[in-house]
Amino acid sequence: MDIAADPTHPRYASLLRRHLIESAAAEGLLAGSAMIAHGRGEAFDYLLGEATSASAALATMEAWARMRDASHPVISVNGNTVALAGRDLLHVAAALRCPVEVNIFYRTEARMAALLGRLEAWKAEDGLEVEVLGARDDGRILGLEGPRSRCEARGIAAADVVFVPLEDGDRCEALVAMGKQVLVVDLNPLSRTARTATVTMVDDVVRVAMALRDLAVREEHPAPNAAWDNTAVLQDALDGIVAHLTSRFRDA
Amino acid sequence: MDIAADPTHPRYASLLRRHLIESAAAEGLLAGSAMIAHGRGEAFDYLLGEATSASAALATMEAWARMRDASHPVISVNGNTVALAGRDLLHVAAALRCPVEVNIFYRTEARMAALLGRLEAWKAEDGLEVEVLGARDDGRILGLEGPRSRCEARGIAAADVVFVPLEDGDRCEALVAMGKQVLVVDLNPLSRTARTATVTMVDDVVRVAMALRDLAVREEHPAPNAAWDNTAVLQDALDGIVAHLTSRFRDA
Repeated sequence: MDIAADPTHPRYASLLRRHLIESAAAEGLLAGSAMIAHGRGEAFDYLLGEATSASAALATMEAWARMRDASHPVISVNGNTVALAGRDLLHVAAALRCPVEVNIFYRTEARMAALLGRLEAWKAEDGLEVEVLGARDDGRILGLEGPRSRCEARGIAAADVVFVPLEDGDRCEALVAMGKQVLVVDLNPLSRTARTATVTMVDDVVRVAMALRDLAVREEHPAPNAAWDNTAVLQDALDGIVAHLTSRFRDA
Repeated sequence: MDIAADPTHPRYASLLRRHLIESAAAEGLLAGSAMIAHGRGEAFDYLLGEATSASAALATMEAWARMRDASHPVISVNGNTVALAGRDLLHVAAALRCPVEVNIFYRTEARMAALLGRLEAWKAEDGLEVEVLGARDDGRILGLEGPRSRCEARGIAAADVVFVPLEDGDRCEALVAMGKQVLVVDLNPLSRTARTATVTMVDDVVRVAMALRDLAVREEHPAPNAAWDNTAVLQDALDGIVAHLTSRFRDA
């Protein structure tokens, strides 16, 4: 915990996330390329100023409204999401009374067991009532092949709204093609996932999960916005990166 | 090698690099955070369009001219550099008749031995005459403390020009403060390393190493430019990122 011991360090939040990812890798929760994916996220977050923009906050509120409004919402988590935000998302799921489904791109029984075990341990520690799915793979994501197509029949396959951080482009497209609302967290506003999703939160998954926990304890809840303009959110994120880049260079 | 088997794949170069990094990690060549660092590089390279800009090519030519002109140039390599470009840099060192020094931030004897062994194996396979340093740590980088300050007395400590890809900001500053010319490869034009160095190549280390090999076999060689404007190179890289970001979004 040495790297995360000094909250006054300017890169404390970033170092803490790195520590969570390295611990999860040591615990066998992650695929081989997970740390590379995390590094890509770090770079984009750095370009966004490591802060939640107003438009990203709005997107998270919209995602929350849609999950609350859904008939059968599901929170889908992969290894990096569990490592970084799994505990917070369990609290969000408890508030929504919706399941959390472990759904990973490179599915192995060992990783599935490790991820399910980690979530169950947090659930027990925090006394939460949440259904954790993923052990069964009796559902299919249409249009995909092989292990990537697998999901749980009464989880993602049956969902009308899927909250799925850090998803790849193919799966995001396939879920949208199945008629689901897909709510994604992706720090790259140019990625296929970001462009395909119903609602894109261009933000760090830790900050999004904390914001959702905050929204869950409010007394008033926003209604979904049927005229949601996701492209405007992506454009705003891009403008933010460009503005941040240029100001950062001027200040140097 | 499956991921790197199809050179027509649009992300072939990027996947090949990832494969090299993952293999090196399995071989024990890398520190725990090396894959995260690689992912950050991937993101910046994506923003640069995964191509060498004209200004980056100019910076590499300037670095080459300065190494050729130096009394005692040294090529300093860390784990990621060895994994991605070690073999090419051995060829460059052979052409320059300069040593390659393994110099790593998180120094352990096991990693040092693995990295030195990898370089020696390539040297033997390719029949190169290059002095590979790093086993001794009898030199010091002034202004740093602990393992990060160590280097080899007749390598980096004695060098007038150090070519050091993927260096951290503190070490880059310390080397510059020692009066050395520091030639860095860094995909983030905003990093402290990029801003502190004498010559910054805002480019991928694989492409830089290949370009240096190409320069090494030319008959004519450029002279160093005493009026080299490194800030202009950084500004150009930043402009390139911004232009690429905005055009990429428009094309979507």
